[in-house]
Amino acid sequence: MSLVDQFLTIRKYTESICEPLQTEDYVVQPIEDVSPPKWHLGHTTWFFETFILKPHGVNYQEYNPDYNFVFNSYYETVGARVIRTDRGNLSRPSVNEIYQYRHYVDEAMSSLLSETITDEVMELLILGFNHEQQHQELLLTDIKYILGNNPLFPVYSSDWIEHEEIQIQPDRIAVAEGVYEIGYAGSDFCFDNELNRHKVYLNDFEINATLETNGTYLDFIKAGGYSDFNYWHAEGWDWVKKNGIKAPMYWHDIDGAWFNYTYAGLLPLNMLHPVTHISYYEAYAFASWKGMRLPTEFEWEVAAKQFGWGKRWEWTESAYLPYPGFSKAPGAIGEYNGKFMVNQKVLRGASVATPKDHGRITYRNFFHPHLRWQFTGIRLAK
Amino acid sequence: MSLVDQFLTIRKYTESICEPLQTEDYVVQPIEDVSPPKWHLGHTTWFFETFILKPHGVNYQEYNPDYNFVFNSYYETVGARVIRTDRGNLSRPSVNEIYQYRHYVDEAMSSLLSETITDEVMELLILGFNHEQQHQELLLTDIKYILGNNPLFPVYSSDWIEHEEIQIQPDRIAVAEGVYEIGYAGSDFCFDNELNRHKVYLNDFEINATLETNGTYLDFIKAGGYSDFNYWHAEGWDWVKKNGIKAPMYWHDIDGAWFNYTYAGLLPLNMLHPVTHISYYEAYAFASWKGMRLPTEFEWEVAAKQFGWGKRWEWTESAYLPYPGFSKAPGAIGEYNGKFMVNQKVLRGASVATPKDHGRITYRNFFHPHLRWQFTGIRLAK
Amino acid sequence: MSLVDQFLTIRKYTESICEPLQTEDYVVQPIEDVSPPKWHLGHTTWFFETFILKPHGVNYQEYNPDYNFVFNSYYETVGARVIRTDRGNLSRPSVNEIYQYRHYVDEAMSSLLSETITDEVMELLILGFNHEQQHQELLLTDIKYILGNNPLFPVYSSDWIEHEEIQIQPDRIAVAEGVYEIGYAGSDFCFDNELNRHKVYLNDFEINATLETNGTYLDFIKAGGYSDFNYWHAEGWDWVKKNGIKAPMYWHDIDGAWFNYTYAGLLPLNMLHPVTHISYYEAYAFASWKGMRLPTEFEWEVAAKQFGWGKRWEWTESAYLPYPGFSKAPGAIGEYNGKFMVNQKVLRGASVATPKDHGRITYRNFFHPHLRWQFTGIRLAK
Amino acid sequence: MSLVDQFLTIRKYTESICEPLQTEDYVVQPIEDVSPPKWHLGHTTWFFETFILKPHGVNYQEYNPDYNFVFNSYYETVGARVIRTDRGNLSRPSVNEIYQYRHYVDEAMSSLLSETITDEVMELLILGFNHEQQHQELLLTDIKYILGNNPLFPVYSSDWIEHEEIQIQPDRIAVAEGVYEIGYAGSDFCFDNELNRHKVYLNDFEINATLETNGTYLDFIKAGGYSDFNYWHAEGWDWVKKNGIKAPMYWHDIDGAWFNYTYAGLLPLNMLHPVTHISYYEAYAFASWKGMRLPTEFEWEVAAKQFGWGKRWEWTESAYLPYPGFSKAPGAIGEYNGKFMVNQKVLRGASVATPKDHGRITYRNFFHPHLRWQFTGIRLAK
Repeated sequence: MSLVDQFLTIRKYTESICEPLQTEDYVVQPIEDVSPPKWHLGHTTWFFETFILKPHGVNYQEYNPDYNFVFNSYYETVGARVIRTDRGNLSRPSVNEIYQYRHYVDEAMSSLLSETITDEVMELLILGFNHEQQHQELLLTDIKYILGNNPLFPVYSSDWIEHEEIQIQPDRIAVAEGVYEIGYAGSDFCFDNELNRHKVYLNDFEINATLETNGTYLDFIKAGGYSDFNYWHAEGWDWVKKNGIKAPMYWHDIDGAWFNYTYAGLLPLNMLHPVTHISYYEAYAFASWKGMRLPTEFEWEVAAKQFGWGKRWEWTESAYLPYPGFSKAPGAIGEYNGKFMVNQKVLRGASVATPKDHGRITYRNFFHPHLRWQFTGIRLAK
Repeated sequence: MSLVDQFLTIRKYTESICEPLQTEDYVVQPIEDVSPPKWHLGHTTWFFETFILKPHGVNYQEYNPDYNFVFNSYYETVGARVIRTDRGNLSRPSVNEIYQYRHYVDEAMSSLLSETITDEVMELLILGFNHEQQHQELLLTDIKYILGNNPLFPVYSSDWIEHEEIQIQPDRIAVAEGVYEIGYAGSDFCFDNELNRHKVYLNDFEINATLETNGTYLDFIKAGGYSDFNYWHAEGWDWVKKNGIKAPMYWHDIDGAWFNYTYAGLLPLNMLHPVTHISYYEAYAFASWKGMRLPTEFEWEVAAKQFGWGKRWEWTESAYLPYPGFSKAPGAIGEYNGKFMVNQKVLRGASVATPKDHGRITYRNFFHPHLRWQFTGIRLAK
Repeated sequence: MSLVDQFLTIRKYTESICEPLQTEDYVVQPIEDVSPPKWHLGHTTWFFETFILKPHGVNYQEYNPDYNFVFNSYYETVGARVIRTDRGNLSRPSVNEIYQYRHYVDEAMSSLLSETITDEVMELLILGFNHEQQHQELLLTDIKYILGNNPLFPVYSSDWIEHEEIQIQPDRIAVAEGVYEIGYAGSDFCFDNELNRHKVYLNDFEINATLETNGTYLDFIKAGGYSDFNYWHAEGWDWVKKNGIKAPMYWHDIDGAWFNYTYAGLLPLNMLHPVTHISYYEAYAFASWKGMRLPTEFEWEVAAKQFGWGKRWEWTESAYLPYPGFSKAPGAIGEYNGKFMVNQKVLRGASVATPKDHGRITYRNFFHPHLRWQFTGIRLAK
Repeated sequence: MSLVDQFLTIRKYTESICEPLQTEDYVVQPIEDVSPPKWHLGHTTWFFETFILKPHGVNYQEYNPDYNFVFNSYYETVGARVIRTDRGNLSRPSVNEIYQYRHYVDEAMSSLLSETITDEVMELLILGFNHEQQHQELLLTDIKYILGNNPLFPVYSSDWIEHEEIQIQPDRIAVAEGVYEIGYAGSDFCFDNELNRHKVYLNDFEINATLETNGTYLDFIKAGGYSDFNYWHAEGWDWVKKNGIKAPMYWHDIDGAWFNYTYAGLLPLNMLHPVTHISYYEAYAFASWKGMRLPTEFEWEVAAKQFGWGKRWEWTESAYLPYPGFSKAPGAIGEYNGKFMVNQKVLRGASVATPKDHGRITYRNFFHPHLRWQFTGIRLAK
C-alpha cells in the first residue's frame, strides 16, 4: 500500500467510527475525560497540520489560525489552548466545518506524501498514524460514554460485539525466577515509553491464562466486596464511598436483574463475558478478595506469549515510570509521554476498541487509577 | 385571532428564534444558567403536554414517557428530573426528534383548542403562553451566551439591532411623597407575584429619565471603579476579585480599543448605547460612585409612566419578596414563582429580547445579584 | 457611672464570658462563621486602638504593628487582614499575650477618658461600646458552637439558663391597616441602619403573642416537614438535601429520645421551651406548613410593643435593605453596616446572649438565611 | 536498658519535643496534613492502649471510651473516627487531660512491661515504639508548619540547628550493572513494606555524593525554572500554576533578599545548606533542568553505603509499591502500610527530625508528590 493510501485508510477509519452518530452526539463532553467526537476529528487533523504541513509542507496555507487554539490538546509548546473542561461548550466550528478542515488537510497531506519525503517527515508521519489510532480508540470509548450515560440508552450499532464468552482455564502459567528483557526490541515504530529495552529480575510467579468474568466479579459484589474496606487501598475506599460505587460502570440493576450497556444497547449481563469498565481500585480490591494480586507490567510482558490477550486492557500493579535510559524528544513531540509519568498505572494488552495493528506486547497504556471508561479488565497473578 | 392561531403564533415564534442556529448550537450548556436551545424547545412543549394535554386532553397519548425526565425543569411535584448542570451532556433526544415532539404536541393542542375549553384549561393555556414567552427571552439570551463565548465569535444575525443611541436627558423626574398603589390591577393575565395590588408609602424621590450608557460606565471603569472596594457590597467585592471582573460581560479590550459582542458579531463599543450585561453588584457600585442609588421596585413602578422603558431590564434595590396577601396556587403550578423569593433582586421593565406583549409595568423579573447574561441595565435615582 | 467605669464595665464583661473556658477553647474555629474566642478578645481591643487611640490618643504608642493584620475583621480601609477562614490556624498571639494587649489598651483608654474628650471621640467611643457588645453576643454563641460540636459535649456553665417555658397564648395581636413610622427616633445611640425614621404603609395583619416551641416544631418534623419540598424555598430545599438537615442545630436523637445541647450540657428536650437555632429556611418552611407566614420587620416593629420579646432573635420575611435616605459614614466606620445589605434577612428582637441595654425595638440584626448558630426563633403572622 | 526504661525513654522524648510549645500551639491544624500536637500525644497513647493494653493487659480499665473516637487515625477496623480535617476543631480533651491520659497509659504499660510478656506483645510493643517515633518526626514537622505559617514567625528553639553547610563534591559514585539485593535482611525490627528481600537488576548508573543546596536551587529559580513547563510533569505544572508556587516552602523574599523560616526563626538563606521543603514535582523539575534525574529507590539503597545520608529525606523516582511477596498482617495492624501503596512516591534516607535509631538503609518513607512540609531534599543521578 502506498503511503498516501496508508494515510487515507487510517484517516477514513476515524470517520467511519463516527458514521452511526447524529450531529448532536459529536458535541457533548459529559465528563472531563471524555472529549466531544468532533474535537477528536479536529485534533487529529491539527496534529498533521501543525507538526508536518506547517513546518514541512510546500507553500502550505494554514486552514484557520483560530483552530490552533481550539484543537491543541495539551502541547504547551504550541501555544494557548481551550481548557480541557471547556471542549463541550463549543458548538463551533460545526461538524461540517471540521470535516471540511479534515479534507483540506488530507489533500495537502496526500500531495505531500505523493512526493519523496525526508526521514524526519517519515518519522512524524508514523507518529501521526499512531496518534490517530490512539484517538480512534478514545473516540469509540468516548462515544460509548456519551450514549451510555444518556437516559434514553441509544444504540450505537446493533452489530457491534464487545464480548466473547470465556472458557475459564483452571491452570495457571508459571514463570521461573531470573533475569528477563523488557521493552521494545524491533525496528518498527514504538512509543518512546517502550524504550530502552532493559533487563529486570523477576521472582517465580504464576499468572492466569484467562481474564476474570462478569460472573466471578458478581461473586465479589455478592460477597460484600464494595462494603469491606479491608480489600481496598485507602484512596480506593474513599473513592467508593464518595462516589457511591457499587458495580462496574455501565452495569444497571433493573428490578433485581443486572443489565449492561453496550454499543448494541442495554443487554442482560452475560456471566461468561470478561468483566470490564472497572477502575484499578476495583481490580486491586477484587484481587485482594481472591487472595491473589495483579501482575506487574514486567511479569505481564514476559508471560504474555503464553496466553491470549488483546480484548481488554489489563490493569497491572506497576506505576507508569520511565524505563532506564528513557529520554524525551526535544520540542512539542517530547510532550507525548514523559510528562504523564506520575500518579498513573500501567495497563497492558489492547482492547476491542484498539485499531488492528496498533497493539504490541511491549505497549504501555496508562490511566489514573479511578478511571473506568476504557475497556479495562482483570488478570490475576500470584 | 383564534385561540389555535394564537397558540401556533407563539409556538412558531420560538422556532423562528432558532432559525439562524446550526444543529450544534442547540446542544451546549457552557454555564449552569444557560440551557441548551434544544432543551428550551422540549421543555416548553413538555409544559403543555404535562399540564394541559395529559390531565385535560381527550384520549391523549403521551409522546414518550422518558421525556418527562429529560424536560422537567424544576417542578418537584412532577417527578425526577435531569439535574440542571447535566442538560448540556445529553445529545439525545436529537434536535429533529424534539421538533417532532413539538409538532405532535402542537397538533394535539390545536385539536383541543378547536373545541370549547373549560376555564381551568383556559387559565393553564394563558400561563403556558406566558411561560413560553419567558423561555423565548431566555432562549435568545442563552444563544447569545453560547455564541458570544465561542472563540470564533459567530454572528447570530447581522440584522439584529440590540441598541439604540440614547439622548441623555439632564432633568430628573420628581415624585412626591405619599401613598401609592402597587401591583397588577387589570383583568388580563399577570403572574401571581404581581398580586395583590396594595398600598406603599414612598418618600420624595427623583429618578433619571434615561438609562446609563456605555460611555458613562466607561468613566466608572477609568476612574478605577473595579479596584476601589468602597463602592461595592462586601459580597460584590468578593465576586469582583474571585472572578477577575473588569468590565461588563461581552466587552473585549482588543489592543486598547473596546469591542462589544452582539448578535451581529463583535463590534466597536458605541458610547451612546445603554450599558448592559452588568450584575446587580456592578449596578450598585456604579450608582455609589455617582453618589446616587438604584430605585426600589415601587419607585420604579410609580415613576415609569413618565419615562420610556422596555429596552433593558433595570436592576432595582428591592429584594424579590411576596406582596401582602401573596399566596401560591396548589400543585405544580404553585411552584412557579413563590419558591424563588429569597436571595434574588427584582428587575423591572423589559428588554430587546422580551417578546412583544409580554411586558407590563407591574412585571417583576428576578435574578441572583451576580448574574449578567440577561440584558440588564442601570437607571439611577436619588 | 463615669465614662472610664462604663468603659471598664463593658470590657470586663467580655472577659467574664471567657472565664469558664480552658485555654484550648480560645483557639479553634470549627466553621468560618465561628471565630476563635481569643480573636474576639483581640479584635474588640484593636477596634479601640485603631479608631480612637491611634488617631486621637496623646503620644499613644501602638502595641504591636503585626496585630493590625491579625485582628482586623473586614475593614478594607485599614489594610490587609487574615482571611476569615484562617483565624483558627493561628496559635499566636497566645491567650495571655492578648490579655496583655487588652490591659495595655484599657489603660491607655482609661487615661484618655479621664480627660475631657471631643464629640468625635465620644461618638467613636459609643460605637466601640456597641461594637464590643455585639461581639459579646457572638463570643457566647461561638463558644456554644465550639463546645456543642465537640464529641465530649463539655459543659460551659451548669447555671446558665437558656430557656424559659412558654405559655402559649391562642389569641393573636391584630394591627389595623395604615401608615406607620419605622426606625429609630430617639437621641441616644443607634446604628446607621436604623435610620432614617420613615413612613411605611401596612395592611391589616395579625401576629402571635408568643414564639413557637420545641413542641410545635417537633410536630412539624413528625409531619414530615423536612421531606416535603412544598414547604420550602427552592434554595432551602437544596440546603436541606445537601446538608442532610433533619432537626434544629444542637438537637440529638439518642436512641429515640431528643436531647438538646445547651450551655449547661446535653439535656432532654423541653417541649415548652422556644425552638431556637433554626435557619430562615426552616422558619419559612415551618410557617408554610402552619398555613401562616413570618412577619415583615415593619409589622414586627409596629406590633412589638404589644408582646414580650428579647429572648430569641426572630426571623422576619424582610430582606436587609437600606431605609430611605440611608447613607454611610465616610472611611472605615462607614463599612460597618451598609456593605452587607444584600442577600441577608433581617432578624428583630434580641436573645438570651444579647448584653443587657444593647437591645432596642428598632434594632436590625441580619444573617444569611442558612445560618443557625445564633439564638434564632419563630413568631408567626397572618 | 530495661523494656520499661526503653518504653519511658521513647515516651518522654515525645513530650520533650512539645516543651517549647505554648498551650495554644497544641491545638491548631492549619492544613489537613498537619495534625495538632495534642492529637499526636493522644493518638500515640491510644495506639498502646488499643493494641496492647485492652487486648493483653491484666484487668486494664479503659481510660475514656470517647477517646477511641477522638484519637483513632485511620484504622477502619477499630471503629468510627474524627475525620482528619476536623482534628483542629476540637478544643477538648485539653492538653492537660491528654497528658493525664498519657500518664495513665504509661503507668499501665510500665506495670505490664515489668512482668514477662509474650512474643505477640513484644512484637506489638516494638511496633508501638516505631509508631511513636514516626509520630515524633511528624510532631516536629507539624510544629514547624504551625509556627512557620504564623504571621508572627515565632521561634521554636534558638538552639535548634536544621542545617550543616555542604562541601559539594564534584565526583559521582558509579555503580556497575548487575543483580542486587534489596530489602531488609537483618533480624531486628523493620516495617512490613521493607520485605521481602529480593533481587533487582540495575543498569550502570552514577549518583551524586552530596545533596543539592539552596544555592544550586536558587540558580534554577533564577533560570526561570518555575515558569518553563518543559521541566515539569503535566500534573506538576498544574500544581505550580494553581498554587502560585515560586520557591520552596518557608522561603520568603523580603525586599529582594531571601529568608528561610527555621526552628530558630526567620534567618537569611544560607546558600551552602541543603535545599529542603520541596515537593517531588520540584525535585523532578530541578533534575530535568540539570539534565539529570532522581535515582530509583533501588539505586539509592545500593549506592547509599558510599555516601553520607540521614539529614534529609530524598525523593526518589520510584512509586510506592509492594515488594515481591509482600503480605499484610491480619487485622488493624495490617492497615499500617499496604493500603497506602498507590499514588505516592518513595523517599529514602532520614531527616534531622527523624529520631535517632529510627533510620535504616532499607527504610521506605512515602508521601504524595505535592507535599512539602517534611524535610525533603534532592540527590541527583544519571
